[in-house]
Amino acid sequence: MEQRVVVVGAGLCGSLLALYLAQKGYHVHVYEKRSDPRIHFQSKGRSINLALSDRGLAGLQLVGLDKKALEISIPMKGRQIHSAENSKLSFLPYSGREQEWINSISRQELNHILLNEVEKFSNVNVFFNHECVALDTITGTLSMECEGNMIHTKGEVIFGTDGANSAVRQAFLKQSAIYQFNYSQQFLEAGYKELEIPPSDSDNFRLEKNALHIWPRDGFMMIALPNLDKSFTVTLFMPLKGELSFENLNSSDRVIAFFKTHFPDAYEQMPNLSDDFFNNPTSSLHTVKCFPWQVEGKCVLLGDAAHAVVPFYGQGMNASFEDVLVLSQIIEQNSTNFEWKNILELFQVRRKQNTDAIADLAVDNFYEMRDATADPFFHKKRQLEIYLEQNHSEYFSKYSLVTFREDLSYYQAMTQGRKQDKFLMEFVKNLQKDESINYNLLLEKISLL
Amino acid sequence: MEQRVVVVGAGLCGSLLALYLAQKGYHVHVYEKRSDPRIHFQSKGRSINLALSDRGLAGLQLVGLDKKALEISIPMKGRQIHSAENSKLSFLPYSGREQEWINSISRQELNHILLNEVEKFSNVNVFFNHECVALDTITGTLSMECEGNMIHTKGEVIFGTDGANSAVRQAFLKQSAIYQFNYSQQFLEAGYKELEIPPSDSDNFRLEKNALHIWPRDGFMMIALPNLDKSFTVTLFMPLKGELSFENLNSSDRVIAFFKTHFPDAYEQMPNLSDDFFNNPTSSLHTVKCFPWQVEGKCVLLGDAAHAVVPFYGQGMNASFEDVLVLSQIIEQNSTNFEWKNILELFQVRRKQNTDAIADLAVDNFYEMRDATADPFFHKKRQLEIYLEQNHSEYFSKYSLVTFREDLSYYQAMTQGRKQDKFLMEFVKNLQKDESINYNLLLEKISLL
Repeated sequence: MEQRVVVVGAGLCGSLLALYLAQKGYHVHVYEKRSDPRIHFQSKGRSINLALSDRGLAGLQLVGLDKKALEISIPMKGRQIHSAENSKLSFLPYSGREQEWINSISRQELNHILLNEVEKFSNVNVFFNHECVALDTITGTLSMECEGNMIHTKGEVIFGTDGANSAVRQAFLKQSAIYQFNYSQQFLEAGYKELEIPPSDSDNFRLEKNALHIWPRDGFMMIALPNLDKSFTVTLFMPLKGELSFENLNSSDRVIAFFKTHFPDAYEQMPNLSDDFFNNPTSSLHTVKCFPWQVEGKCVLLGDAAHAVVPFYGQGMNASFEDVLVLSQIIEQNSTNFEWKNILELFQVRRKQNTDAIADLAVDNFYEMRDATADPFFHKKRQLEIYLEQNHSEYFSKYSLVTFREDLSYYQAMTQGRKQDKFLMEFVKNLQKDESINYNLLLEKISLL
Repeated sequence: MEQRVVVVGAGLCGSLLALYLAQKGYHVHVYEKRSDPRIHFQSKGRSINLALSDRGLAGLQLVGLDKKALEISIPMKGRQIHSAENSKLSFLPYSGREQEWINSISRQELNHILLNEVEKFSNVNVFFNHECVALDTITGTLSMECEGNMIHTKGEVIFGTDGANSAVRQAFLKQSAIYQFNYSQQFLEAGYKELEIPPSDSDNFRLEKNALHIWPRDGFMMIALPNLDKSFTVTLFMPLKGELSFENLNSSDRVIAFFKTHFPDAYEQMPNLSDDFFNNPTSSLHTVKCFPWQVEGKCVLLGDAAHAVVPFYGQGMNASFEDVLVLSQIIEQNSTNFEWKNILELFQVRRKQNTDAIADLAVDNFYEMRDATADPFFHKKRQLEIYLEQNHSEYFSKYSLVTFREDLSYYQAMTQGRKQDKFLMEFVKNLQKDESINYNLLLEKISLL
């Protein structure tokens, strides 16, 4: 099979896809608007590390890179909660089962591994500094700018894997009326800023290494993920405008006072806080949903370009890698009478419901993490779920269904998870004081939901 | 008060707004990408006539043009239903009350009236053939192309009234992340094509003049509105793709066979059917919702640019005119301490919920007109409502609330109308055979909803 296909965007999704297509024997041209990330390091303060979990690993396994990725990851076995009262710590394992944790990995390092592997194939050409400026999605004609020159090319198929602000998707929007391209972008009122907890003076981790750290507060929150160099990437999520907001944290004094008040334990570990705060950008968070993802078998969107999600389920990259896995499965299942139009139509239909599900779950989780903490029943339910997950291996919380059960689709995980959540909230509300729980009966009921 | 403001788009909404601002004494620059419609007639086959109703008239009254508009309108006192069985006709009046009808008016003629009035003001300049190609919504800097030349200008405020495919809104989209611009465009599976029933050989109307004609069918439908020249503008709505679709009506033979089968009475009156069908474009139908509509008091979207709706409630133009009316009310109410930022923030908040409501009602009505006709309870309810509207002047159906009660907001009309619909559907379902209805009791119950 010798066909030239084009991949626009050599980020995580694009390089995984290019690698899979290369292994299948396609002639692949990859165009990336940025320079080679292995030579020029990406600007600081933007999504430096990510949580790699089972769905993402299954995608990497497709091309034989799952073990290599784990080698540069740090397991996060649970959430380390830093409470507002006296910075009290509590560790909540992700599950009581073996091998169920998530992995902190550097976006750049993972991209390097993928690109290095891609470049081993003589049937792939990767062109950096090529920015897509126009695309006719009907004919698959692509126009790019490289160092002031315009370059035009065509592909048997154009794969748009150019991320949340996709230029390929822009081209779909321009030709909306031709194929009724439905599109929505919805912002959260919250934005984020990346900060850092550097290694300690004795070159050690300043916080528990094998955990995802969370500082839940009322109306805002902070998280931290470990890096191989013993630093932590810290992300502060809070409203962009309003009383407690990024807009109002406009002086070093205010930032320091804010951290001393709300994150005193973290503040102690952030010697560069004020510089980081004012040097790093404040970014917004939005969900993109659209459909169709493909035009006549000629152009298709994958990954964030098709379904940008907010980061509150830690599934953005994982969903993108699962896209590539599902596409590969459809390609394998349809190898006789192979036709891209058929493949891509199946792909978008099989995938759309699931990426809508993870998009909605991620938004829900933002509000849950931000607001639901004040409800005493919510805490009781959370305690009950932790007990069930630690002691009954057959029980999977919604989070576990989404994160660890890659045998279920996101949609199935969402549906089952929501039923459980609703049932358990009712259950704890109806629980009498000092009433003991018959866990086996409870699990039986849950299994029937 | 002397301030230069800029209006982008001299269609219906833009020229009404420009006229109001001119009357208020503003120095107004209006830029329109098309040529002067009074000199060059608009291309055929695109929204030639519209239904002007009370909200639109209230907007025209603001500038003193309501009577002039009615002079070039044809009252449509009810719906003339052309049933599928033997082309049986039934006339359903819009209401039993005085003065409650809607008016067929030519988009072009109404635009001419507005533009002629605009040009009487020396403080207004209208520039045709000026296409907005770029806009910085933060600074209000506008770039336009006119006959190959680029022109740059600024305004105290930029009003984007450039319709459903607004270039001003494109600029908002480009700067999305700065002010979290939420946006969605959703297409219907159906598209439309405009056709014509010309005047008869004896120069008369070929159908009842004072009616909006509807041919409801299963999965598609056709409507016709009268014109002053004794023709009717006919619009066929049907799926773009699929078995019974525009895509499949790809030969003269097929078109004629289709019309003979489904619209035999109309077919008789359409001597130019086949030519019209293949000369006129097939267009798609979409809803646009977005927010915010304004940026820092510098740029604001109004009319279809802010809220494009599908045409199934006949409210698109009326909603746009009501935008101008509401804006004028806010300007009057805030004449002391006048500040555009304050005015436009109030405007978008007061308007958004209502334009969302009419957008949703219009989509609902598409499905109701297309699908609900098969449900016998739906017919019973419709009969009951017609009886109530003809005989009890205090009863307003959802349609009447939306169309004739401009004292209610669209949102109030929708909320009340939906409650009534739900209640009446339940009522007819529970009605025993031969049970007589106590109408006064029924109306009492409805008034308490």
